[in-house]
Amino acid sequence: MSGADADWIAADWGSSNLRVWAMRGSEMLEARGSDRGMGALSAPADFAAELDRITEGWPDVTVIACGMVGARQGWVEVPYASTPCPAIPALTEVPDTQGARRVRIAGGVMQTDPPDVMRGEETQIAGVLAASPDFDGVICLPGTHTKWARISAGEIVHFQTVMTGEIFALLARQSVLRHSLGDAETDPQSEAFADALATALSQPHQAWARLFRLRAAGLVAEGDPAATVARLSGTLIGLDLGAARAHWLGQQVLIIGASRLARLYEAALKLQGVAPIIGDADTATRAGLLAAWRKTGARP
Amino acid sequence: MSGADADWIAADWGSSNLRVWAMRGSEMLEARGSDRGMGALSAPADFAAELDRITEGWPDVTVIACGMVGARQGWVEVPYASTPCPAIPALTEVPDTQGARRVRIAGGVMQTDPPDVMRGEETQIAGVLAASPDFDGVICLPGTHTKWARISAGEIVHFQTVMTGEIFALLARQSVLRHSLGDAETDPQSEAFADALATALSQPHQAWARLFRLRAAGLVAEGDPAATVARLSGTLIGLDLGAARAHWLGQQVLIIGASRLARLYEAALKLQGVAPIIGDADTATRAGLLAAWRKTGARP
Repeated sequence: MSGADADWIAADWGSSNLRVWAMRGSEMLEARGSDRGMGALSAPADFAAELDRITEGWPDVTVIACGMVGARQGWVEVPYASTPCPAIPALTEVPDTQGARRVRIAGGVMQTDPPDVMRGEETQIAGVLAASPDFDGVICLPGTHTKWARISAGEIVHFQTVMTGEIFALLARQSVLRHSLGDAETDPQSEAFADALATALSQPHQAWARLFRLRAAGLVAEGDPAATVARLSGTLIGLDLGAARAHWLGQQVLIIGASRLARLYEAALKLQGVAPIIGDADTATRAGLLAAWRKTGARP
Repeated sequence: MSGADADWIAADWGSSNLRVWAMRGSEMLEARGSDRGMGALSAPADFAAELDRITEGWPDVTVIACGMVGARQGWVEVPYASTPCPAIPALTEVPDTQGARRVRIAGGVMQTDPPDVMRGEETQIAGVLAASPDFDGVICLPGTHTKWARISAGEIVHFQTVMTGEIFALLARQSVLRHSLGDAETDPQSEAFADALATALSQPHQAWARLFRLRAAGLVAEGDPAATVARLSGTLIGLDLGAARAHWLGQQVLIIGASRLARLYEAALKLQGVAPIIGDADTATRAGLLAAWRKTGARP
């Protein structure tokens, strides 16, 4: 079967990217993607045109989407649910898709105390719960803005966002540290990663002081880009784990994502005596979108 | 008297800016500046041409310079002194100024354990010590890379760099937080600044977790740009003070700089029971350059 046999289309439409899947029930038939995320589009007609373009040749079936496409700057602003709330998001129909397919967008989740928001991760969490309805523990979603969500009885009870991925990218690509990193990538098994992680967890102020040392070390002696990038990763993930300690300590932790970043979180949690499970992010997204659609009763 | 009466020229040539002063002894006759810092220049001829351009009309007198102009990517690489060392920097003559004035560049200071470097701040420290030879305490030099230097018996004993200014600029201008700050500037007397500072000093992991909340607070309720920027400043300066606590606790602290940033450090230290003195940065730079030149015996 190919995309032409789809009976619905799943879409993960974030700030930077759009990914669509031609689906038949829970089976994925074809995947496509573009870099035309919410940030690259402004008018509703832009969203409609991009969706038409990227799904060309696929049948005229309903599109179920999640992510920043539902933000204020997105296609249609979809309201947030408030914690504690069921993980399965409510869907809002785009009132006028300008002649294109019907589109329904998943709502994000907000928390008032302390203030926090997510858009897209709630759908991944719903996908995990569709497969494991009795999951009770913490779901970690590493990324630009890493989320830690406490799940119980099918609900998102509480969550916390840490800007780890965004701050890493700013420091690694735009700060003075960029001169010391080269093209090296962090080895999660390296001593430099473990050492920086331990410092950031136990002595966060010292970890903060050590950031400039990553640059200075290469000026007063020979630099080692692989160790330097591992130290930067270890420091930022250590600060993140320190900030989220109340979430993961003594809990069952599921990491959604098979990315390099997810592997770093896995290694970091293992060093703290936690044995996380890793789940696939795209599988979770598609399962969550299907669960959201089924919940409306409109899924044929 | 005007710049035409100068008997030497002082230059502060950093990464982003060049500032020059026509000097007669310790008296400043005229000031000029440009944005052609070390980062905007590459070949030695570029440095020579820019210096000629900016000092046009001034006499053919010696130029004494400090800052990144002496870095590997600068005009001539000038060696570092190693801590502990006298604050007054040694000068290295530019071997060929391509027909322009004689130029001598101050050397920076490095530290091997832990690794750290400075270029330019040593000259400001030397200027402070020229006026107060018996100063014993800590000099704080707020900036892109804030320095904390322990001074005793006329020497730089130890120092520490924290990337506070650079990280503030990245977060405020390029991260998702930029949407929440507007054009607001931090009020050092605000409760938001004091509150974020206290959290960052006593609970640094929580401070780290609160960064994203600065954005989320404006999505789940009405945002307050003035309080938001004050919280961001308070958080980063609090992490900085926490990292440098061993430097300032129970010490006499002198802050060099009258900038807004220096005022924030002053307010932050006062909240910790330290009563810092503030000194003018440009005055210190010029006095340090003169002291360095006099030390060579070449100053007529």
